[in-house]
Amino acid sequence: MRNLTLLTDLYQITMINGYLKNGVDKNTVVFDMFFRKNPCKNSYTIIAGIEQVIDYIENLHFSDEDLEYLKSLNLFDDEFINYLRDFKFTGTIYSVEEGSVMFPYEPVLRVKAPVVQAQLIETALLNMINFQSLIATKASRICSAAEGDAVFEFGLRRAQGPDASIYGARAAIIGGCVGTSNVLAGKKFNVPVIGTHAHSWIQTFDTELDAFRAYAKVYPDSTLLLVDTYDVIKSGVPNAITVFKELKEKGYKPQGIRIDSGDIAYLSKKAREMLDAAGFKDTIIVASSDLDEEVINNLKLQGAAVDSWGVGTKLITSKGCPALGGVYKLSAVEENGELIPKIKISENPNKITNPGYKKVVRIYDKDGNKARADLIMLHDEKINTNKPLTIFDPIYTWKKTTFKNYSIREMLSPLYENGKLVRERKTVEEIRKYTQNELNSLWPEHKRLKRPQLYKVDLSKKLWNLKHRMMNEVNKNKL
Amino acid sequence: MRNLTLLTDLYQITMINGYLKNGVDKNTVVFDMFFRKNPCKNSYTIIAGIEQVIDYIENLHFSDEDLEYLKSLNLFDDEFINYLRDFKFTGTIYSVEEGSVMFPYEPVLRVKAPVVQAQLIETALLNMINFQSLIATKASRICSAAEGDAVFEFGLRRAQGPDASIYGARAAIIGGCVGTSNVLAGKKFNVPVIGTHAHSWIQTFDTELDAFRAYAKVYPDSTLLLVDTYDVIKSGVPNAITVFKELKEKGYKPQGIRIDSGDIAYLSKKAREMLDAAGFKDTIIVASSDLDEEVINNLKLQGAAVDSWGVGTKLITSKGCPALGGVYKLSAVEENGELIPKIKISENPNKITNPGYKKVVRIYDKDGNKARADLIMLHDEKINTNKPLTIFDPIYTWKKTTFKNYSIREMLSPLYENGKLVRERKTVEEIRKYTQNELNSLWPEHKRLKRPQLYKVDLSKKLWNLKHRMMNEVNKNKL
Repeated sequence: MRNLTLLTDLYQITMINGYLKNGVDKNTVVFDMFFRKNPCKNSYTIIAGIEQVIDYIENLHFSDEDLEYLKSLNLFDDEFINYLRDFKFTGTIYSVEEGSVMFPYEPVLRVKAPVVQAQLIETALLNMINFQSLIATKASRICSAAEGDAVFEFGLRRAQGPDASIYGARAAIIGGCVGTSNVLAGKKFNVPVIGTHAHSWIQTFDTELDAFRAYAKVYPDSTLLLVDTYDVIKSGVPNAITVFKELKEKGYKPQGIRIDSGDIAYLSKKAREMLDAAGFKDTIIVASSDLDEEVINNLKLQGAAVDSWGVGTKLITSKGCPALGGVYKLSAVEENGELIPKIKISENPNKITNPGYKKVVRIYDKDGNKARADLIMLHDEKINTNKPLTIFDPIYTWKKTTFKNYSIREMLSPLYENGKLVRERKTVEEIRKYTQNELNSLWPEHKRLKRPQLYKVDLSKKLWNLKHRMMNEVNKNKL
Repeated sequence: MRNLTLLTDLYQITMINGYLKNGVDKNTVVFDMFFRKNPCKNSYTIIAGIEQVIDYIENLHFSDEDLEYLKSLNLFDDEFINYLRDFKFTGTIYSVEEGSVMFPYEPVLRVKAPVVQAQLIETALLNMINFQSLIATKASRICSAAEGDAVFEFGLRRAQGPDASIYGARAAIIGGCVGTSNVLAGKKFNVPVIGTHAHSWIQTFDTELDAFRAYAKVYPDSTLLLVDTYDVIKSGVPNAITVFKELKEKGYKPQGIRIDSGDIAYLSKKAREMLDAAGFKDTIIVASSDLDEEVINNLKLQGAAVDSWGVGTKLITSKGCPALGGVYKLSAVEENGELIPKIKISENPNKITNPGYKKVVRIYDKDGNKARADLIMLHDEKINTNKPLTIFDPIYTWKKTTFKNYSIREMLSPLYENGKLVRERKTVEEIRKYTQNELNSLWPEHKRLKRPQLYKVDLSKKLWNLKHRMMNEVNKNKL
């Protein structure tokens, strides 16, 4: 396992030294990780990357080499370098389950730890969760556009480095893809890998037909042929049909064709006709060619006869919205055993944080099928589900909703307790299933690709009051 | 060093098996890596990531674990698994020097190897060079907007995974940044790291002034204070000045302030006035806050009093253009010791490849100062620089340019010869200097951020004729 302890901003380390030198390094603080905006104007974000956060924390330690490097910066004295030698994580982390569907401003992860520890892990946590959540969410949009067709992740060559391809493939599968072309991701996460041949295969043989036959000879059980090297309709599909007939005679069942360029709507419909007419109704058509949710949506509107989609660059980089802006903000400081809420003020009201030690409660229909709204509350607040529950918009406070028949679920659960991992590790397949349930719990209106209905996230009365009291105090002090 | 041998698309491996089973695995082929479009409507691309390609190839081998995994896919027989056991790279690679400024359609890397080897390495090569070239180019745009001010890479928390942050920081420095906040990148590549403190530092102390004093106590020689936690002008800068005066009395030289939100133009000018009036003309102002080349350009137009810039998300993800679409195309196949040119046809003329074993020649002014045009030629063509050289546009062939006093340089040089690394390894600092020379060789017109003048890249007469003959042949065969 890679040691990523130095995967942090230098200021975390200069601050740790600063806390130590000021004698406050053992002070306990609370940080919330949350995001302010869903990617791609989506109405939700799928949180992914928690398992990588676990790997990171389990392996958190400064190696001799790390310490030597930090010493070489001439910023730190020996006392500090020795202090880091024994550094480990002893804090408590609550988080959502990986694969949860979450909304802006909700804590998705909450760290309570000595300030030096909470600070060190900030950057790596954000890096891991921001990226994988971004790709899982983008994948869910693409899979939604594909309306149940299989979607494959094909973006390795355009991903932002090796990890982006590996963890991006993982996140894409969590978000709904059924497999990836990335062999290393397949090995690492035990997820389905897929792949047949490229245009270069065709080009290294004298003719397209020779190349198809050469491929079918080696993979008679799974012959899927790329038909657009020369001309899909005049050459690729007719040659594929020739080879499919030869396979059929030998008792094999050909798999289908892939189209990687040109007008996918026209070409797929025409190819389908030709394959059907030749008696190959069971074969599939795979499309790939600079696809994303909008292109797939449009192609489907025109009746493209595509059975499965290979999506590359625009999925693996989340083109158009290549970063999720997750942040990690101080929400409380422990003083004499009590958690004192902290707030971060900003001229921009959207950037004012929610103070205090908080939790997130999801409100469902009585039968627990559909999510209706979320409530951010202080950690010690309770809801009596036998009584009606009225919530209100935190800005337009006259906008109220009352629930009578409802059930609730707490979204944050323990991940680490006093430095000890307390949650079972999950496979990608388990997380993927969990995500599908999460998505099923949303009304379709929230899952629309364009202008989805926003999901309601309100603050409890107690939290709202606390926040407004603190904002007023800060303003008073300024005058 | 990580074993990234499986960092490839599955189809590369199914094709390798296919080539083996068809008895053509030892056939020598030539692939070119090139790109069709510069990122961000720039006129050039800085090629980066070559050193990582070397690391990758030096470590290329299928481990027992890799082979076990491939076997578990039930796609391959034992013969093939054993064949992979002895797999190593024995081919020849020519490439540009890392940090070279290159243009669309030019081969930046050329692989001549047995088809199975050339095929396996395609995906990882593209992944590494695409990403780092993208970020190096984006960084050069941002540094160009900063007009010589120091630019720091601050994007770790929003990068697309750990590698994207590490290799992205490296590429950003090659493209012109002077340092990064990323400690692991600093350690790995021996590049400058920078960092002071965050808003949370301020919040964990009772008052901003307490927090500033606590910081200055630990770092009296390098006190750079973040002044926007509460209010830059009413609180942050006055408190910073108080602490700067205290430092000055003790004989220290305060470093400056950082502004991370609000209107950077107004706030920096106002802060500059206040610092100057208090006798701290030598202090610097660092700005960070969702910056990119356009914002920096605009802020400078309004006279922002910023000395150095910290750029995060939009640099490390190259937001707006998050992928360089580098491709890797077959250009020749060896038959009886002779390289037979290959072409890939497409309905889209921009996607038709340049056939044959090629090189790139850059034409300079006589004194070698400024680059005038590039010429893609067949490998065995020669230019006699004592004679005038006339080149012509490959589409508008009547557009001709003649050079009389000129010098030339071949851009591709050996990287691997028959599997052996033949180029000296370079440090990031060396590559960065090389890149700066490369950028200096371009006329300013090519470096304009918006609508730059396109740099001329023509084909030699011999290559143009070959390509047109091959295109016509393919069209004839279609009828």
